[in-house]
Amino acid sequence: MFIDSDKFREECGVMAIYGHPEASTLAYLGLHALQHRGQESAGIASSDGSTIFMHKSMGLVMDIFNEDVLTRLPGNIAIGHNRYSTTGDSAVLNAQPIRVDCNKGMIALAHNGNLVNANDIRSRLERSGSIFQTTSDTEVVVHLIAQSKEQTLPDAISDSLRRLEGAFSLVIMTRDRVFAARDSRGFRPLSMGIIPAANGAKQDTVVFASESCAFDLIGAKFQRDVKPGELIVVGPEGVHSRFFAETKKQSSCIFEHVYFSRPDSEIFGQSVQVSREALGRQLAKEAGIEADIVVPVPDSGVTAALGYAAESGIPFRFGLIRNHYVGRTFIEPEQRVRDFGVKLKLNPVRSLLEGKRVILIDDSIVRGTTSRKIVRMVRDAGAKEIHLRISCPPTVSPCFYGVNTPSKDQLIAANKSIDEIRQYIGADSLAYLSLDGLKEACGEGVKASYCTACYTGIYPTEFVDVHDIKPAPAEVKI
Amino acid sequence: MFIDSDKFREECGVMAIYGHPEASTLAYLGLHALQHRGQESAGIASSDGSTIFMHKSMGLVMDIFNEDVLTRLPGNIAIGHNRYSTTGDSAVLNAQPIRVDCNKGMIALAHNGNLVNANDIRSRLERSGSIFQTTSDTEVVVHLIAQSKEQTLPDAISDSLRRLEGAFSLVIMTRDRVFAARDSRGFRPLSMGIIPAANGAKQDTVVFASESCAFDLIGAKFQRDVKPGELIVVGPEGVHSRFFAETKKQSSCIFEHVYFSRPDSEIFGQSVQVSREALGRQLAKEAGIEADIVVPVPDSGVTAALGYAAESGIPFRFGLIRNHYVGRTFIEPEQRVRDFGVKLKLNPVRSLLEGKRVILIDDSIVRGTTSRKIVRMVRDAGAKEIHLRISCPPTVSPCFYGVNTPSKDQLIAANKSIDEIRQYIGADSLAYLSLDGLKEACGEGVKASYCTACYTGIYPTEFVDVHDIKPAPAEVKI
Amino acid sequence: MFIDSDKFREECGVMAIYGHPEASTLAYLGLHALQHRGQESAGIASSDGSTIFMHKSMGLVMDIFNEDVLTRLPGNIAIGHNRYSTTGDSAVLNAQPIRVDCNKGMIALAHNGNLVNANDIRSRLERSGSIFQTTSDTEVVVHLIAQSKEQTLPDAISDSLRRLEGAFSLVIMTRDRVFAARDSRGFRPLSMGIIPAANGAKQDTVVFASESCAFDLIGAKFQRDVKPGELIVVGPEGVHSRFFAETKKQSSCIFEHVYFSRPDSEIFGQSVQVSREALGRQLAKEAGIEADIVVPVPDSGVTAALGYAAESGIPFRFGLIRNHYVGRTFIEPEQRVRDFGVKLKLNPVRSLLEGKRVILIDDSIVRGTTSRKIVRMVRDAGAKEIHLRISCPPTVSPCFYGVNTPSKDQLIAANKSIDEIRQYIGADSLAYLSLDGLKEACGEGVKASYCTACYTGIYPTEFVDVHDIKPAPAEVKI
Amino acid sequence: MFIDSDKFREECGVMAIYGHPEASTLAYLGLHALQHRGQESAGIASSDGSTIFMHKSMGLVMDIFNEDVLTRLPGNIAIGHNRYSTTGDSAVLNAQPIRVDCNKGMIALAHNGNLVNANDIRSRLERSGSIFQTTSDTEVVVHLIAQSKEQTLPDAISDSLRRLEGAFSLVIMTRDRVFAARDSRGFRPLSMGIIPAANGAKQDTVVFASESCAFDLIGAKFQRDVKPGELIVVGPEGVHSRFFAETKKQSSCIFEHVYFSRPDSEIFGQSVQVSREALGRQLAKEAGIEADIVVPVPDSGVTAALGYAAESGIPFRFGLIRNHYVGRTFIEPEQRVRDFGVKLKLNPVRSLLEGKRVILIDDSIVRGTTSRKIVRMVRDAGAKEIHLRISCPPTVSPCFYGVNTPSKDQLIAANKSIDEIRQYIGADSLAYLSLDGLKEACGEGVKASYCTACYTGIYPTEFVDVHDIKPAPAEVKI
Repeated sequence: MFIDSDKFREECGVMAIYGHPEASTLAYLGLHALQHRGQESAGIASSDGSTIFMHKSMGLVMDIFNEDVLTRLPGNIAIGHNRYSTTGDSAVLNAQPIRVDCNKGMIALAHNGNLVNANDIRSRLERSGSIFQTTSDTEVVVHLIAQSKEQTLPDAISDSLRRLEGAFSLVIMTRDRVFAARDSRGFRPLSMGIIPAANGAKQDTVVFASESCAFDLIGAKFQRDVKPGELIVVGPEGVHSRFFAETKKQSSCIFEHVYFSRPDSEIFGQSVQVSREALGRQLAKEAGIEADIVVPVPDSGVTAALGYAAESGIPFRFGLIRNHYVGRTFIEPEQRVRDFGVKLKLNPVRSLLEGKRVILIDDSIVRGTTSRKIVRMVRDAGAKEIHLRISCPPTVSPCFYGVNTPSKDQLIAANKSIDEIRQYIGADSLAYLSLDGLKEACGEGVKASYCTACYTGIYPTEFVDVHDIKPAPAEVKI
Repeated sequence: MFIDSDKFREECGVMAIYGHPEASTLAYLGLHALQHRGQESAGIASSDGSTIFMHKSMGLVMDIFNEDVLTRLPGNIAIGHNRYSTTGDSAVLNAQPIRVDCNKGMIALAHNGNLVNANDIRSRLERSGSIFQTTSDTEVVVHLIAQSKEQTLPDAISDSLRRLEGAFSLVIMTRDRVFAARDSRGFRPLSMGIIPAANGAKQDTVVFASESCAFDLIGAKFQRDVKPGELIVVGPEGVHSRFFAETKKQSSCIFEHVYFSRPDSEIFGQSVQVSREALGRQLAKEAGIEADIVVPVPDSGVTAALGYAAESGIPFRFGLIRNHYVGRTFIEPEQRVRDFGVKLKLNPVRSLLEGKRVILIDDSIVRGTTSRKIVRMVRDAGAKEIHLRISCPPTVSPCFYGVNTPSKDQLIAANKSIDEIRQYIGADSLAYLSLDGLKEACGEGVKASYCTACYTGIYPTEFVDVHDIKPAPAEVKI
Repeated sequence: MFIDSDKFREECGVMAIYGHPEASTLAYLGLHALQHRGQESAGIASSDGSTIFMHKSMGLVMDIFNEDVLTRLPGNIAIGHNRYSTTGDSAVLNAQPIRVDCNKGMIALAHNGNLVNANDIRSRLERSGSIFQTTSDTEVVVHLIAQSKEQTLPDAISDSLRRLEGAFSLVIMTRDRVFAARDSRGFRPLSMGIIPAANGAKQDTVVFASESCAFDLIGAKFQRDVKPGELIVVGPEGVHSRFFAETKKQSSCIFEHVYFSRPDSEIFGQSVQVSREALGRQLAKEAGIEADIVVPVPDSGVTAALGYAAESGIPFRFGLIRNHYVGRTFIEPEQRVRDFGVKLKLNPVRSLLEGKRVILIDDSIVRGTTSRKIVRMVRDAGAKEIHLRISCPPTVSPCFYGVNTPSKDQLIAANKSIDEIRQYIGADSLAYLSLDGLKEACGEGVKASYCTACYTGIYPTEFVDVHDIKPAPAEVKI
Repeated sequence: MFIDSDKFREECGVMAIYGHPEASTLAYLGLHALQHRGQESAGIASSDGSTIFMHKSMGLVMDIFNEDVLTRLPGNIAIGHNRYSTTGDSAVLNAQPIRVDCNKGMIALAHNGNLVNANDIRSRLERSGSIFQTTSDTEVVVHLIAQSKEQTLPDAISDSLRRLEGAFSLVIMTRDRVFAARDSRGFRPLSMGIIPAANGAKQDTVVFASESCAFDLIGAKFQRDVKPGELIVVGPEGVHSRFFAETKKQSSCIFEHVYFSRPDSEIFGQSVQVSREALGRQLAKEAGIEADIVVPVPDSGVTAALGYAAESGIPFRFGLIRNHYVGRTFIEPEQRVRDFGVKLKLNPVRSLLEGKRVILIDDSIVRGTTSRKIVRMVRDAGAKEIHLRISCPPTVSPCFYGVNTPSKDQLIAANKSIDEIRQYIGADSLAYLSLDGLKEACGEGVKASYCTACYTGIYPTEFVDVHDIKPAPAEVKI
């Protein structure tokens, strides 16, 4: 769950609360539970019925918000947003929610996903005189809403969403309503929950969150997923659902099950913990090997490793200890310590590894550089054999739907054979899970239907005019 | 020059640098020299020819910018902005420069003044689908530029400025040019200076600043004021001037001479120090009285007091000492100390005041609360008589041109006779400078022609659709 | 490894480096690896041969030290210290190292443990005119060294250590030497390691650390434990060992194996990971029960749970997910969420727990309040039965040797029967590991001999004049 | 009053409060008023009758103390201390108050001055086994008190103070008493004041402060100076005075009148403002010259310049404007701006200086580097002639009594003739005030008797074993 320079990064997490006297506090707790989806910046907007308040800043949720800040976010409606961490170029300018004043009134909006036609829309809007203050794809959405000819806000929002192509799980608020929408393919998760009305309150609190793990902390009960193509409107009149677009073939991001989502979440109809154990079991079936112990690369590889161990009957051991105090930058001695960066995060347990044949379980290989260091470190700790097993297929294509992937030339599996990767990494054997095995473990066809473009290069949208391929129009910093 | 809750507040200071390898560093030093014009937030935008970088934050210039931040503002073009301090409601959201991306390319802009038709323009723009992200009047300017049908940027800027009514001293930058403009009445000051080209450099550096005091620190020579209605364009082709509007009757803010501008600045064609001494001399002529010593309320009343003393022959004494370490909030004992707030800033010198007939010189009375405390404190220190003299006429009307004034019902002189004010304040006598005396001291008709609306209620613009009377559309905080 | 208000707290971790050009950087990395032993404050002292530099502050190691700070800690000798976290009363005043100037020259010292006769010594010293500037027991050590009549520093240190009763693992430095010592019963761990000399360097680097996990990150190899009663002197003349006191019966803290030490450390001659798995296996043998899954309370209960699962054949599941972003204070909604505090740290995985008979494994019960909440939370998540198993015996007596325990009246096991505890906690069954089982798992008699006073009330020292029972002489804050 | 690298620096200011429910708040306000005496660090100790609380830190008083911190300093007794700013070597380690626990109970102490026999005492104490934790001369005082054989604390303090040689104005507190003492020559000021008991309170509040300006802000009335050689004890039994030593010839620091003390203070029996005006008048008499204007170097030269102008009849003008926002470090452009450092603080008013014969008044020349820059800047601004007048004699010897002076080889007047200084500085003429003139202006023989060692090299103490000549035993940083 921690920041790793050689891991894929989720772009965002979103929260929305309707009808609770402490809406911004609940949003803040929900964002904390969704912290793994974005550690760069966070923000909350709230409404007391007459105006929309906002606070956003760089940093972790628990550092940004305190009692003082939350007091300045009054009202019983709130939305919130976490943004992923990059190396420093991005900025509070692009932090969300985005809040604007327009002919539809005041609107605030938070977005998880990526719009593949944002550049097209932006160019068109700029030509007609619109100005843009951020470099985020999300800013086009508020322009579209402002310029829609539709008379009511739900209609204007529907109209706008229909024009968007790509991945979006959106929460939108006005002074007195909350809107939640998911693109017609359902790329990113978005769940709805309920906090039953306390004594005296007339109406239940309605909440939305990227993942259901955000519900537990605030005492909400999971109700259902927002459906692909659905727009849910929550207001004084109650909860109403409409579909802004015809549903397309569902293509939910399978990597949410493999890596992104918290294991205690239920997404796309299935528990993540259950999926991950199934991935490990399947991996043991497909790529079994004789060995003494099964060792996960913590934290993300742990559940798959448990599944592998259970299926194979080979004992599970915590042969690598994760140091949870790791921050972003650490001073390295000039007299270099081998594999220093990895050692900061992981420490091998020599007494467990020494002389052993080790099956090492991880959830992905991006550039291969980190895997190479881990394997070397495990070998230095005395392991006799190291068999690396990956709980998904080789990653060969970048994602355009909200995951921050390196370009294709940096994805090792796009450029090397599996044996070449094994050699580079220095493992005695290397195996990936099959695509079919992955899909089955995640309930393809039963629970959901998945986008597997990163493993196949087959993209569910027609074009992939990539927002972030365009050189950032300006490194604007506030 | 320090923050005083019972003083008028200037809204802003602006800087621009064209053609210097350390443009952002010069902008930062200039903003520091203009710190008295705004202590709430500051920002700098710079261009390296291909993109516009920006950094803005709450706080003082010297706290916001350091070597690290300035390194991230490269290029030989920069503009900067200081914003005034309010009690906490305003925010980094409204900090400037404003930077946008539009069909004219990237533009950054900084504004000193207030647009009286901003709400009209904003409503019209919103109706046609524009979105607004700040509550600042300045945001309409970038919208107008983006929507102008003119083909060139200078034409589009001229076109836009023609649509604005009110006070504006503006600096604008693109990737490769700087623009400086002043409204057609010349409300706020804006000066141009030159740093002669160093060895090897082909072109002189051109700088613009709200006040000429910003030139000294960066080694620039004062050239001239930007003229009312003038737009100066500085680019690779040199310095070009055009007039975007017919010049109207000049109505420069006379209060810049009385209080706002730094005494070492030359504005509207006259040294501020010289004006202030003349105010004091004139006051002595108009409102002389027998006394033992002339004592200024520091710092702003000092020069007028010197003039008063010189004219009257009554000795000048520093009977009140200013504490320059005063910050924004101080903890007061619960067992209240009388006039605690004033004592934090000013301390009477008993040995000078005891048994004396004191002429106290100040530059304005806003609500009267602070003057009342000062008079009481001076009396507690033993003064036998206290004769308060104010170096301008009674302030009876709010300003709509960039000065932050309380509403009319809070201006004591709008609601009480001079003798009632005297009684409230507790002085033995009270006199204000006459309007004619004020104008003459500031060179009316000779050096400049002035707006004196705050003393007369006669406003030079036709309507005063006051931006800041409208309840802030949202207390948005970033 | 994270801060938990209902867990015992280790008091400190210590580091020492002799003979490395980046001594302070290595000390800092070592302290980071020992962060779990104390999160309140940290400090490093270093020597360049002519003076001793020092930096200490409240906070985590990675927040206190940066390149700038480390540059101001030059030289090839360094010692470091981590201090445990309390609720706010303790302070930087008591942070270590302690550095003094005395007739033996400049000395800096860092201490893990607790001296049971510190108050006695302090009273005697005060009577003879000594002054004390901290409330820490450690300050008496430097007084004793300064007042020793012995001629050489090793002799003076030996003389002083002989007068101390209780637990101490000490590192001491002068301008040109490092000393490491352990009390004669060997309560706390202290290990020695070697970094082989790099090309050109004449001498190996000698390092000392509370736990061997600190060696891995700095590329050091574990050599051996400092022995009970041993004083090791490292200087230009090499490494020399002496015994300052006759060795008493070893009484190493068995709770280091149960909870404190990092699983990747080897202490008292045995791998912590190995001990913990053995604890779990033994627990399964002693307190087996029919169930569906074994679930650890993470992070500390994980390894014991793996051992329990392996021994019992019941599947291991991560039914509780730990949130690693948890900070010290969180804002709770006024409309209380049940078990909010526990939910911030732990989230149950409903899909795994629902309808299951769960064996929950934890490493200790202090007051019982947290266990009660965890059990309730697991039950709320649908568990059918909950059988709590603790990997050590009931804690009935406070520790006086360096562990921060609540007083006896707050230890639930000192005041209730096991069945009463079970009832309070709300588990269906509750069992603790036997004392014999604990000792055997930790290698009693084979690897080491242990202090088990917290389980038996039988203390290895004659008297337990408890330093921290005395009301703190002053809540002094710097 | 601001930090100037080419000015002498006062070492400290002290405060004490006895008998006020908000003692620490009053101490904090008093320290704020004494901020000019030390800007590096500040601290307050308070007692609630049973324990002594303390908080000290680097920085300005208003930054260190807030409501939260003051709440943690309860009780009706408090002492406080400001420490001067150095370039970075000194540290919070040496911040005061010093608080210790010893056989006389808990004691806290704050000191202004410098002990010339501190090294002697420290060596002797170290030989007998004492340990020192700071590099400050003040630490010996608490050791002496702890080791005194006297039975009562007043006796022990008297006994200790008798052993000290040099300058000390001390405030000391125990749990229930405040002590104030001044060395037998009365080098540094120390005043006593009274806050009359509020309704219901039985006893007046007694306060001590380095300067009387600290009384005004807290509503205290000046009573009298603590006398040279006097120890005042304030406790439940009332206020008692005793003399711990025979009074020696008074030798109060005359430079307190010239520069250090605030103009609104009354020290050594005379108002500082009055002394400074007299200095200026005397200077005009001794070193008159024909000129157009008298211009002070602000802020410290202002009052002397007013006196000079009044005496000479030459008009006073603020030809140099001080920028009060100046912080410690500013980024300078690489293309150097001439006299940049001085320009940050002072800006010449060209309109006043141009073509004028200027008499420039300053209060001292240390190294001459700043004076040289100021003269050049004034000349660059168009002055025709510049006549520099200094309101005291040439500084030729360092101070050993609490003022931070550069060594003799860096004092320009110790190494150059007045005409050589004039040449170096670039003035048209240069004159200093005579020693007799200085003494007379400050009331020598009438109000007080002064130490003028810095002008004469004749030191009132027998030896000057300078504490700060000894190389700092360690650059210890906390």
